[in-house]
Amino acid sequence: TEVPRQRPNEIPHNEKLLSLKYESLDYDNSENQLFLEEERRINHAAFRTVEIKRWVICAMIGILTGLVACFIDIVVENLAGLKYRLVKDNIDKFTAKGGLSFSLLLWATLNASVVMVGSLIVAFIEPVAAGSGIPQIKCYLNGVKIPHVVRLKTLVIKVCGVILSVVGGLAVGKEGPMIHSGSVIAAGISQGRSTSLKRDFKIFEYFRRDTEKRDFVSAGAAAGVSAAFGAPVGGVLFSLEEGASFWNQFLTWRIFFASMISTFTLNSVLSVYHGNAWDLSSPGLINFGRFDSEVGTGIPHAGFSSLTFAGGILGALFNALNYWLTMFRIRYIHRPCLQVVEAMLVAAVTATVGFVMIYCSRDCQPLQGSSVAYPLQLFCADGEYNSMATAFFNTPEKSVVNLFHDPPGSYNPMTLGMFTVMYFFLACWTYGLTVSAGVFIPSLLIGAAWGRLFGISLSYLTKSSIWADPGKYALMGAAAQLGGIVRMTLSLTVIMMEATGNVTYGFPIMLVLMTAKIVGDYFVEGLYDMHIQLQSVPFLHWEAPVTSHSLTAREVMSTPVTCLRRIERVGTVVDILSDTSSNHNGFPVVESNPDTTQAGWVAGCSGDPHTRCLLQVAGLRGLILRSQLIVLLKHKVFVERTNLSLVQRRLKLKDFRDAYPRFPPIQSIHVSQDERECMIDLSEFMNPSPYTVPQEASLPRVFKLFRALGLRHLVVVDNRNEVVGMVTRKDLARYRLGKEGLEELSLAQT
Amino acid sequence: TEVPRQRPNEIPHNEKLLSLKYESLDYDNSENQLFLEEERRINHAAFRTVEIKRWVICAMIGILTGLVACFIDIVVENLAGLKYRLVKDNIDKFTAKGGLSFSLLLWATLNASVVMVGSLIVAFIEPVAAGSGIPQIKCYLNGVKIPHVVRLKTLVIKVCGVILSVVGGLAVGKEGPMIHSGSVIAAGISQGRSTSLKRDFKIFEYFRRDTEKRDFVSAGAAAGVSAAFGAPVGGVLFSLEEGASFWNQFLTWRIFFASMISTFTLNSVLSVYHGNAWDLSSPGLINFGRFDSEVGTGIPHAGFSSLTFAGGILGALFNALNYWLTMFRIRYIHRPCLQVVEAMLVAAVTATVGFVMIYCSRDCQPLQGSSVAYPLQLFCADGEYNSMATAFFNTPEKSVVNLFHDPPGSYNPMTLGMFTVMYFFLACWTYGLTVSAGVFIPSLLIGAAWGRLFGISLSYLTKSSIWADPGKYALMGAAAQLGGIVRMTLSLTVIMMEATGNVTYGFPIMLVLMTAKIVGDYFVEGLYDMHIQLQSVPFLHWEAPVTSHSLTAREVMSTPVTCLRRIERVGTVVDILSDTSSNHNGFPVVESNPDTTQAGWVAGCSGDPHTRCLLQVAGLRGLILRSQLIVLLKHKVFVERTNLSLVQRRLKLKDFRDAYPRFPPIQSIHVSQDERECMIDLSEFMNPSPYTVPQEASLPRVFKLFRALGLRHLVVVDNRNEVVGMVTRKDLARYRLGKEGLEELSLAQT
Repeated sequence: TEVPRQRPNEIPHNEKLLSLKYESLDYDNSENQLFLEEERRINHAAFRTVEIKRWVICAMIGILTGLVACFIDIVVENLAGLKYRLVKDNIDKFTAKGGLSFSLLLWATLNASVVMVGSLIVAFIEPVAAGSGIPQIKCYLNGVKIPHVVRLKTLVIKVCGVILSVVGGLAVGKEGPMIHSGSVIAAGISQGRSTSLKRDFKIFEYFRRDTEKRDFVSAGAAAGVSAAFGAPVGGVLFSLEEGASFWNQFLTWRIFFASMISTFTLNSVLSVYHGNAWDLSSPGLINFGRFDSEVGTGIPHAGFSSLTFAGGILGALFNALNYWLTMFRIRYIHRPCLQVVEAMLVAAVTATVGFVMIYCSRDCQPLQGSSVAYPLQLFCADGEYNSMATAFFNTPEKSVVNLFHDPPGSYNPMTLGMFTVMYFFLACWTYGLTVSAGVFIPSLLIGAAWGRLFGISLSYLTKSSIWADPGKYALMGAAAQLGGIVRMTLSLTVIMMEATGNVTYGFPIMLVLMTAKIVGDYFVEGLYDMHIQLQSVPFLHWEAPVTSHSLTAREVMSTPVTCLRRIERVGTVVDILSDTSSNHNGFPVVESNPDTTQAGWVAGCSGDPHTRCLLQVAGLRGLILRSQLIVLLKHKVFVERTNLSLVQRRLKLKDFRDAYPRFPPIQSIHVSQDERECMIDLSEFMNPSPYTVPQEASLPRVFKLFRALGLRHLVVVDNRNEVVGMVTRKDLARYRLGKEGLEELSLAQT
Repeated sequence: TEVPRQRPNEIPHNEKLLSLKYESLDYDNSENQLFLEEERRINHAAFRTVEIKRWVICAMIGILTGLVACFIDIVVENLAGLKYRLVKDNIDKFTAKGGLSFSLLLWATLNASVVMVGSLIVAFIEPVAAGSGIPQIKCYLNGVKIPHVVRLKTLVIKVCGVILSVVGGLAVGKEGPMIHSGSVIAAGISQGRSTSLKRDFKIFEYFRRDTEKRDFVSAGAAAGVSAAFGAPVGGVLFSLEEGASFWNQFLTWRIFFASMISTFTLNSVLSVYHGNAWDLSSPGLINFGRFDSEVGTGIPHAGFSSLTFAGGILGALFNALNYWLTMFRIRYIHRPCLQVVEAMLVAAVTATVGFVMIYCSRDCQPLQGSSVAYPLQLFCADGEYNSMATAFFNTPEKSVVNLFHDPPGSYNPMTLGMFTVMYFFLACWTYGLTVSAGVFIPSLLIGAAWGRLFGISLSYLTKSSIWADPGKYALMGAAAQLGGIVRMTLSLTVIMMEATGNVTYGFPIMLVLMTAKIVGDYFVEGLYDMHIQLQSVPFLHWEAPVTSHSLTAREVMSTPVTCLRRIERVGTVVDILSDTSSNHNGFPVVESNPDTTQAGWVAGCSGDPHTRCLLQVAGLRGLILRSQLIVLLKHKVFVERTNLSLVQRRLKLKDFRDAYPRFPPIQSIHVSQDERECMIDLSEFMNPSPYTVPQEASLPRVFKLFRALGLRHLVVVDNRNEVVGMVTRKDLARYRLGKEGLEELSLAQT
C-alpha cells in the first residue's frame, strides 16, 4: 500500500490524463441477504440506538476538532511569540550598533530550521499530509479514495506540520488544514478503531461501510471549517457543496450539530485560555473582528464593484503561476530530500524578503493607540514603529485583522503595494511545497493588502470622506482574492459572512465572489480543481458535460465484463481475482449452470476472438464485489462439488465489517488444489438488485444515476437483461468539457 | 379542474389515508429521441445562453419577490396605522366620558369586516390561497402537484388576503405567505406565460418542464424566506431542506443569488420609503433588531436550556389542539359561507379579547423613552400608557420586536402571563381559517411572551442582575415556540440567526430548536406535516421507514400494468387513455408485434382471470407518458395500418412544451372510426431507457432511487427484463412508520 507519489516516469506530460490508481468508494449500500437480514432485525428501538450513536459521534467529532484547533492555535501563538521576541530583541540590539545582517541570518536560520523539521516529517513519514488537504477531502467526499488520507498518522503529521510551517514564517495559514484534520477525526471516531494505533475498540461497528463513513467525514470537514473560521453554517455548506450527492435533513442537521459543537468548544477553551471565560469572543481560529454596519453601509457597495474584477484576474494569475510551478515540481522535485531543501529555501527567502522590505521601508507610524503585537522600531523615531513590520513581522492571521481594522492612515500606499507584490509571489511559491499548510490566509492577506490600497487610492482620488474606511475595502479585496483563487461559491460567501459576524456584508461579498469566479473561470480553473486534475484523479463534477447527450451507455461502458455464476468454482474465482491485467472490483453474477466448467463468463464480447465467450444467455442476477469474494475465500465458504445441497459455513455481516476497509490482497489467501475444485455459492452474498441501465441511456442520464446514488458499479444490460458492459467512475470521469467541446481523457494505468 | 376540497363524504375518518387525487410531478428528465436531438443541437455557446437566462430569471424572481414584500409591508403599515389611529381616537374620546363598549364595537366591526373581505376572496375565488402556503410549497417541491398552487390568480388573492388578515387584527403574520408568493412569482416568470392572464410571452420555452420549473420554484421559495426574514442563507437552506432531492452547486448558487437580490431589493425600497436610503436597515419584513453580544454573552446560555422543553411541549399542545380543530373544520365547516362566518367570528373575538385584556389590565408604564407605536392611555395617569396595549393593540411584528427589546421592567409578569395564554388559543384557533395568513409571527409572539416571562421570573428568583436581560429570553422563547410548532431544523436556526443579525446566538438557538423538535416529536408531529397528512397528500419523506427492509419491490408495486406496443393501434391507445377505472399516467412500451390486434398488453397479471393477459414475452423497450400520448393523438401522428413505412407527421419538442403543463383531457380529443384503425409509432416519443428495478429490490432501495432522481414512474422487471409491475409515488407513500411499527395506509380514490 505505497502512497501514490508522482515519479518521474509517471509524469502526466499534459493534464489530459486519468489515473486508475485511485480506488473508488461505494456510497450505495450494496445490499445482500446478510445485510437485509440484519436490517430486518433492527426494530424501531434498535434504530433509535443507532441514531443516538450517530449524534454522539457527531458531538465527539465537534469536541475533538475544536480541541485540536485550540491546540494548534495555542502552540503556534506561543512558539511564534517566542520566535518574534527573540528576533525582535536581536534586531533592537543591533539596530543601533550595526550588524543587522546577523539578525537577518538569525531570522532566516530560525525559519529554515523550523520549516525543515515540518517538511521532513511530511516528506518522509506521510506525504499525503502535505498542503491544505482540501483537494484530498474533496476527492474523498466525491467518492475517490486517496490512500492514507483519513488515518491517524496523517492527522498527527498534519497538526505538527501546520504548527511548524506557521511558526517557520511561511506564507501559509493554519485554517485549511483544519478541514483535513476534522475529517480524519471523524473517520477515526466513527469507525471505532485505528489502523495506526492497531486498536479496535469494538464500538460503532454498524458504521463500518463507505456510506456511513462518508457521512461522518462530511461532518468532520464541516466541523473543521467551523473551527477554522467560526462559521458553522459555512461549514455545513462546504460539506454539502463538496460532498453531497444525495443528502437528507437528518444528516445535514447532524453535520450542523458537529459544526456548532466544534466552534463552541474552540470558543470556550480559547476564551478560558485568554482569561475572559464568559466572553465567547473567539469562535474561530481567525476572527475578522467586528465590522460595524452603521449609517452609510450602503455607500461603499458602489465602490466595491470595481474591486471584483481584480480578484478574478489576480486569482487566475496566481493559479496559472502555481500550475507551472507544480508541473515543474512534478518533473524535477520529486525526491523527498529535494522537497525538504526547497521548503527550507522558501522559508529562508521569505524571511529575507520580509527583512529587506522592513529594512528598506521608511514608513513609520506612532506606536500609541496601535495594537501591533511585535512593534519593530528599527530606524523610526522613539514611540514609532515600522509599519511594514506589522505585515511581515507577524503571523499572517494577525496581519489580516490589522489590515481590516487599523484606522485610516495606518499604512503608506507604497508599503501596501510592495507588500502585495512580494507576498503574492511568496504565497504562490509556497503553495504546493511539501509542508502542511493552507492557502486561505495568504489569499486573504494579499487581497486585504490590495483592497486597502484601493480604498486609500479611492479616498485620495475622490477627496471625499464618504469612501473613508479602507478596512472595508480590505475585507472586500480579501474576499475577491480568495474567491479568485479557490472559486468556492455559496460556502465561501457564508464563511466570509460568518467570520465578519455581520449579515449586512453578505450582499457585497456575494457579488464580489461571484464576479471573481466568473472572471477567474474565464482564464483558468480553481486552485483545488487544478491540483485534483494534476493528480489525474477521476473526479466527478456535478453534472455531465453539457454537450455529452450524443454519447450513450454503449459508448461509455467498459466491455467485455468478467462475470461469475451464482454457484461458481473456487478455482475460477481465485483465477479471476488474481488476474492482474484486469483489476476489476465488481463482478456481475449471471444465470448459473453448475454443470458448465468454463472458467468465468465473459459477457459483451461477441466478435472479440481473444476473450473466452459463452454465447449463452447471461441474464443478470446480481453483483458481487472483490472485497466480498476475498472475505468468502478467506473464510473458505466452500461446498463440495458433489454435494451442493450441503450447507456452507455461515458467514455473518460482522465478518465483512471486520475486514473493512482494508481487505487483504488475493495473494495472501491460500487455496489448496482440492479446495479449487469446490464450489462457492454467491447467492447470499451478492447484491441481488444492482442498478442497471439499458445501452441506449445517454451519458447525462447514466451520470446522474451514478452521481445521485453514489455508485461504484453500474451494469449495462440489453433488452433481455443480459450483461453487455459495466460503467465505473473512470468511464464517466474521462469525458470533460474542454475548450473545443467534449474531450476524452486517456487512461494512465499508473 | 376543480380545486380539491374536502367534502363531507370525502372526510378522512382517520388520518391513515392516502389520496390519489393529487398528480405527481416528474423531476426526472424523461428523455426521448426528440429531447436528445434538441440537446445535441445545443452546443457550448447555446448552453451558455440558457445558463445566462437562468440567472436572469433568478434575478427577476428576487426583484419581484422583494417588491411584492415591500408592497405588502407598506400597505399593511398604512392600513393598520389608519385602523389603530381610528380606534385609538375613539377610545381616547370615550375613556373619559364612558361608553367604551362603543369603542369595542367599532374595533370588532372594523376587524370583522376587513377579515370578511379577506376571507370571501379566498373562500370563493381561490381556496388554495388559504393559510401560509408552506405545506403546499413543501408538497410541490416534494413532487406533488396541488392544483392552482403556482398560478397568478393565487398570488393576487394571497397578497390581498394577507394584507386584509393582518389589517383585520387576526393573530397572523405576513411572513409565511411570502414563501408561497415567491414560489408563484418564480413559476410564472420561468415559464414566460400565465394561464390566469391567458398570455404566452414566448420566452423561456426551454424551461417548460417539471425539473426546470421545480428548480425555479425552489429559488422563489428561498427568495420569499429571504424577503420575509432578511435571511438569504436561511432561504437557501429552507429550499434545500424541503425541496432538494438531488441538487447541484450551480443551482444552489442561483437560489442564493435570487435570495440575496430579494432581500436587497426589499431593503433598498423600504429604506428609501422610510427616508434613510443609505442605511439598508430593513433586510426583511420582520427584523428582530440589534442584539448585542457584549461581555457576558455566555452566561445566559446556561439559563436558556431550561426553556427548551417548554417550547417542545407548548408546540405539541398547539399542534394537537389545531389537529382537533382541523378535523372539526373538515367535518362541519366545509361550506365557503360558513368558513367566512368563522373567520369573521375569530376576528371579532380577537378584538374583544384584546379589548377586555387591555381594559382589565392595570399595568401602566411611563410613556417617555418607550417606542410604542399607538400608546393607549386608557385609565393610566398622564404620560403613561397601558402596557397590555403594546402587545394587543399593534401589529404582531411590532409586538415581537417590543418584547425582544423593551428594557427590563417594561412588562408586568401578570400582563405577559395573561397575554401568553390568550394569544396561544387565539393563534391556534386562527391557523386553518380560510384566510391567507402565516403562523410564524404568532408563534414567535407567544414564545417571546413566555420567554420574557421566564426571564423576569428567573431574575426575580435569583435576585442576580446577571440574568438581567429578559429580551434575550424572549428571543429564545420565540425560537423554542416556533421550533415546537413547525419543527424545522437547520433552516430555522439559520433564519433565526440571520434575523437576529448576530452569529453568537447561533449555538443557543440551535440547542433550543433541537430540544423543541425532539420533545415535540415525542408527542405529535409538526404543524405543516400534520396538515399535509390531513390532506392525504402522498408525501415522500427523506428516507424509507426504517423497518421497511423486509418489503421488496414485488410487494410494493402496482400490478398488473397496462403496456403499449412500440407500434400501437390508435383505437387501443384511445381506449386505454379513456379508461376511467385505471387513470394511469405512464405506460411501459414493450416489444411490439404489429400483427397482434389484441387491445393493450397487460403485464404481470398471470393468474388473474379478469384481465386480458398475453403470456408472450413483454420485454421492456421504453416508457411513454399520458401527456405525450395526448399530444400525439391531438396532432394525429398516425400512419396507415397498410403502410407502416410511411413517414408520420413530424412533431417537435415545441409541441409538447406548448401543451405543458395543462395537457387537454382525452375526452376533448376526437378520433374518428377510420383513424382508430391507424397505427401510432411510439419509438421516437417514448423514453427508451426508463429506470427499472428487479423484483427483489428492497423498499429502501426503491425509495432511494425514486427520491434521489425525482421519479414519477419506476418499472419493475423480472430477470428477463419483462414488465411485472410499476412503482409510483403512492405505492411508496403508503408505508409509514406508526407507533406500532410499519403501517400501510389505505388509498382513497377521492
